[in-house]
Amino acid sequence: MTTFPPVAAPDPDAAAAARARQDMLTKPPGALGRLEDLSVWVASCQGVCPPRQFQRARVVVFAGDHGVAAAGVSAFPPEVTAQMVANFDAGGAAINVLAEAAGATVRVVDIAVDVDQPLSPSIGAHKVRRGSGNIAVEDALSADQAAAAVEAGRRIADDEVDSGADLLIAGDMGIGNTTPATTLIAALTDSEPVAVVGRGTGIDDAGWARKTAAVRDALYRARAVSTDPLGLLRVCGGADLAAMAGFCAQAAVRRTPLLLDGVVVTAAALVAEGLAPGARQWWRAGHRSTEPAHGLALGRLELEPILDLGMRLGEGTGAAVALPIVRAAVAALASMATFGEASVSGGELGAGGQSASS
Amino acid sequence: MTTFPPVAAPDPDAAAAARARQDMLTKPPGALGRLEDLSVWVASCQGVCPPRQFQRARVVVFAGDHGVAAAGVSAFPPEVTAQMVANFDAGGAAINVLAEAAGATVRVVDIAVDVDQPLSPSIGAHKVRRGSGNIAVEDALSADQAAAAVEAGRRIADDEVDSGADLLIAGDMGIGNTTPATTLIAALTDSEPVAVVGRGTGIDDAGWARKTAAVRDALYRARAVSTDPLGLLRVCGGADLAAMAGFCAQAAVRRTPLLLDGVVVTAAALVAEGLAPGARQWWRAGHRSTEPAHGLALGRLELEPILDLGMRLGEGTGAAVALPIVRAAVAALASMATFGEASVSGGELGAGGQSASS
Repeated sequence: MTTFPPVAAPDPDAAAAARARQDMLTKPPGALGRLEDLSVWVASCQGVCPPRQFQRARVVVFAGDHGVAAAGVSAFPPEVTAQMVANFDAGGAAINVLAEAAGATVRVVDIAVDVDQPLSPSIGAHKVRRGSGNIAVEDALSADQAAAAVEAGRRIADDEVDSGADLLIAGDMGIGNTTPATTLIAALTDSEPVAVVGRGTGIDDAGWARKTAAVRDALYRARAVSTDPLGLLRVCGGADLAAMAGFCAQAAVRRTPLLLDGVVVTAAALVAEGLAPGARQWWRAGHRSTEPAHGLALGRLELEPILDLGMRLGEGTGAAVALPIVRAAVAALASMATFGEASVSGGELGAGGQSASS
Repeated sequence: MTTFPPVAAPDPDAAAAARARQDMLTKPPGALGRLEDLSVWVASCQGVCPPRQFQRARVVVFAGDHGVAAAGVSAFPPEVTAQMVANFDAGGAAINVLAEAAGATVRVVDIAVDVDQPLSPSIGAHKVRRGSGNIAVEDALSADQAAAAVEAGRRIADDEVDSGADLLIAGDMGIGNTTPATTLIAALTDSEPVAVVGRGTGIDDAGWARKTAAVRDALYRARAVSTDPLGLLRVCGGADLAAMAGFCAQAAVRRTPLLLDGVVVTAAALVAEGLAPGARQWWRAGHRSTEPAHGLALGRLELEPILDLGMRLGEGTGAAVALPIVRAAVAALASMATFGEASVSGGELGAGGQSASS
């Protein structure tokens, strides 16, 4: 099942009310910059002004291996994917620490890790296969697997929203996963491999050349499906990417705001916008990573990142670090005094221009 | 008393230990970008690795009026300064809400608000005078007042550090205060008024022209003291700016990390670096405001802002919004698992390069 219902836009009335309220707060109109825009976005997603602070922010890390890792496209060996799933489960990874600092909780799902048995039945409940195919030489997935992976992501989003999640973050873990992510972005933005391939976890020049060759070969294989989102996931994506795409699309269907992370999640989101047009209205970009393809995908989605801290880790970390900024935006709109409440004189500009002092 | 003892550098051994520990954590070396640099900075300020999470982050808002406001350089009337002091005291201003969201508390001090009586004895305990002079036509302060204001800021920093503050933020409130702040930065960076004057709280073109004229007149009056930090505060600064300068300098003397806010606080910090050379090693820039002079001052201090969100409010808000980023940096270094602890294989690069898997 890979057809999504039409995506409704966030509530324009709540957005207008939020914009008007911003101009009544005790500050010059616009002085909180992008915090004001973010607060308006949250209000429109929630359909209420002032917006509510997030009560259950949730990170889902999608883990999967990629056959292309055998081509030497990563600085780390493939067994790290499974080791990191255990690290997430034990609470020791960056996303565990950064999510806790941001008031979010973390769930890890094994979509396509290359191990006999998932770490636990619950982690493996949505597993599609052991690793995805080497996209340089073969399809990542069969058609059935691609559909099953998108459906897995959709169900995971439903699970989380049904459990009360009011903000979602998708994260990724998979050695080699920036290679299919970069390929998807190159295909959807019609870009040359040399313009989009980055250093991933930190490959050297020879690794970069191998990675660029793999992306070029995968793009060549994908030329017949370049306008077919599901076909792209099958030919040059992977099960984890397909699940992330389903997750991002379904978050929008369920009217739940979502923060994008780095190049892998954003590649999946770019595909998801094809699967469920308009979904991007329910997303904001947590950060700008150092991967060249990331900026291209964000530009196509017309999303301006909140942070630019030179991060390149994945796992949802860039989104988790941005979450306190979104929380601050919500808090300001919800809790600041208005000119009238505080008996503060307004300025000569904006809706606060009428003096409210006694 | 305006002589500061020599400023010691943050602990280089703790910095080296923090840098080494970053490379042992379960992530590619450098993948957390500027979070890694911030964590190293906090460790070096605290002299310990891993660093401790901040237990008592404290914002001090320095309120003062400026005679130059009578020249029509602001979009808001001067009485707003006193009204906002009451708003801070009641908890309704942006800095109250944003500090709470960041786990910090707020203190407001009346250094030179133009009212008969301060809002309360404690808020007025360090008051220097009613408003500072109109720098376009007269000195902001007498020599004694300038020295008293710097000393007030120093004592406030001592109070806070003695009360357990382990991170300080300076904030500003004062209608017209971007005019002296811009003048100080122009004087210390030898810049033309038209290149540095911004819109403050939101003035129109005519207001901008009046503000630029005021800055030019103040700069002309200040030409004899352009290399004398205290002289600049006296001639073209103000009591609130002088107190902020003393506060920023003394934070460094007391080995306490401090986050800078926008153009007003950063102008004071630029003067403070002259009063206490090396103090800037104890500071980081919370954000980049939209004021042109802010970037010039940050460049001179060689500080790269953490955030760039188009904010232009003051009060310490840009620093408060950045605080969760610094907290995240501390948490990652303090709480992530190492490759060895998590039995994760290292990559081919960096200190994590040795495989730690069993």
